[in-house]
Amino acid sequence: MAEPIVISIDAMGGDNAPEAVIEGVKLASEKQENVFFLLFGDERQIAPLARAKGLPESAYKIYHTDEVIKADEKPSAAVRYGRNSSMWKAIYAVRTGESKAVVSAGNTGAFMAMSKICLGTIAGVDRPALAAMMPTLNPGRPNVMLDLGANAECNATNLVEFSIMGSVFYRLLYKVKNPSVGLLNIGSEETKGREEIREAALILKGNKNKVNYAGFVEGFDINSGKTDVIVSDGFSGNVALKTVEGTSRLIKNLFKEAVHSSFLAKIGFVLALPALLKLKKRMDPRLYNGAMFLGLNGISVKSHGGADALGYSYAVGVAVDLARHDLCEKIRVELEDLILTPESVS
Amino acid sequence: MAEPIVISIDAMGGDNAPEAVIEGVKLASEKQENVFFLLFGDERQIAPLARAKGLPESAYKIYHTDEVIKADEKPSAAVRYGRNSSMWKAIYAVRTGESKAVVSAGNTGAFMAMSKICLGTIAGVDRPALAAMMPTLNPGRPNVMLDLGANAECNATNLVEFSIMGSVFYRLLYKVKNPSVGLLNIGSEETKGREEIREAALILKGNKNKVNYAGFVEGFDINSGKTDVIVSDGFSGNVALKTVEGTSRLIKNLFKEAVHSSFLAKIGFVLALPALLKLKKRMDPRLYNGAMFLGLNGISVKSHGGADALGYSYAVGVAVDLARHDLCEKIRVELEDLILTPESVS
Repeated sequence: MAEPIVISIDAMGGDNAPEAVIEGVKLASEKQENVFFLLFGDERQIAPLARAKGLPESAYKIYHTDEVIKADEKPSAAVRYGRNSSMWKAIYAVRTGESKAVVSAGNTGAFMAMSKICLGTIAGVDRPALAAMMPTLNPGRPNVMLDLGANAECNATNLVEFSIMGSVFYRLLYKVKNPSVGLLNIGSEETKGREEIREAALILKGNKNKVNYAGFVEGFDINSGKTDVIVSDGFSGNVALKTVEGTSRLIKNLFKEAVHSSFLAKIGFVLALPALLKLKKRMDPRLYNGAMFLGLNGISVKSHGGADALGYSYAVGVAVDLARHDLCEKIRVELEDLILTPESVS
Repeated sequence: MAEPIVISIDAMGGDNAPEAVIEGVKLASEKQENVFFLLFGDERQIAPLARAKGLPESAYKIYHTDEVIKADEKPSAAVRYGRNSSMWKAIYAVRTGESKAVVSAGNTGAFMAMSKICLGTIAGVDRPALAAMMPTLNPGRPNVMLDLGANAECNATNLVEFSIMGSVFYRLLYKVKNPSVGLLNIGSEETKGREEIREAALILKGNKNKVNYAGFVEGFDINSGKTDVIVSDGFSGNVALKTVEGTSRLIKNLFKEAVHSSFLAKIGFVLALPALLKLKKRMDPRLYNGAMFLGLNGISVKSHGGADALGYSYAVGVAVDLARHDLCEKIRVELEDLILTPESVS
């Protein structure tokens, strides 16, 4: 049997930690073969939970830590004073090579800052970026979008690097050979939008061997599946991600109101329930849980803070998949010989 | 009887022009009292349509034009060569004072460029902005969001001016005394996001007599109704607007799939139909049609290009409402004595 893939778990991070985390690890361990977990956190809580949830003893090891990074801790303070926390120790195990990837549902800002400082960026990467999956009209083929908030401002080089990293990420996660990449803009014409985006487009056109660049995409393409990867600066990406969330919530609430508005509607709803549950599942944010901090010397996956066990298990699944396929090394190779001079427009 | 409100109509602009336009004007004339329409475009088409749709002869006058701005015309070319078009002539009537507002469903870029050049900006306004209504959880109280794409990049002063213009616009359109204004950002903490946004926040805090500033809002607040007005640069605003569209479309399509997936679901759907139509109506983009180009010396309202008659009539309604309340003069007054020095943070 091959060496198991070792994954670090920040067992104390997240609104429902450590219980949802340990149960999520148990669910992931059932779906993933040959994975070993390092659980960082309070042993007095974790040990009984692991036994109660039925996590096999051969599948984990607990590293006791006393400290936890709080949800409202400032990233700068977390990095300075949090070196004994479960979060830092879990990341540090990736740095030493003891594990291949780290998963946390804790404080996002702190986790990004710590991951960046502890793991460092891949040679050739100017800025790491946060990437996540979004539902589309095509089942089994979500979008990947980045950056989702790590960099409020980006230049053309950053956007090009995001395109390459997103492309490698998509290839490994969804086994798609040549995923298409779109740059998020406010129109599809070449003259539209911000200068850095137009420049990035020209650079990408000169690197077709690395990226299957498909042109500009717009906000309505985020859920359309027009391209596999959508690249944006972290500000617009974060706004778009949260807008999807807000619009889904609005429609869900209006739908609930509609159902409760009449007796016939209630009966209709009961009859349609199995079909509606399928719809709900397609949009279930838990299935898209696991945002990846791309561009670091190590795999760092952020679960949603409020994730339950099922959601957490998907984030662990992303970490395992990427670790198995050696994401970081593949990004490093793809970034070699990148031509950063914009192709002149003819 | 008071003088009628005169509205210019670019009868040739839009995918369904002139028929949907004339029918839309007819619908608007039924809802709005004492309005007179100047219809710009091909008289041979407009005159029979106006009669066929039953628009009263006392309610309109046709100004014949031969030329039409095409949907794919570049704004710069439209401005240079389009002075005999229905679009330009309709805008020009606002400039001469013959009409109080102009409505067009034609080429957005051309309409914005022409409006800006023909009408000019209000003294004290650095950049005009495109504003539109978005549905929220509160019926009868939509959001107004701006800028939606007129300015891909904005500085702090622009964002402050947008806040004031959006606030006046909301007050007049929804009769709300002191509408709350939020700045779109990627987090609610003061240290988050881009510098120009943080600076705009400090300026707004020093102008509480003009704007009811309520702090940072995020993407999920666009449909939540947390604040009445949401201010953003035109890039993120455009992305967010189109993301709402894309997410709504995804859910609608998945819902249709769900309904067709089983016989029971189909029956359920029929029973729930009246309730679902109510939901559909709440999200109906036609009810939110009519984007306003704020900051000009004249009221310039853009209807969606694909609007049908009902949608068009809502855009006309917005124009009439704002003309009745003398929007431009009120914006000018509010921008006087604005304090543009950021308040120091204590």
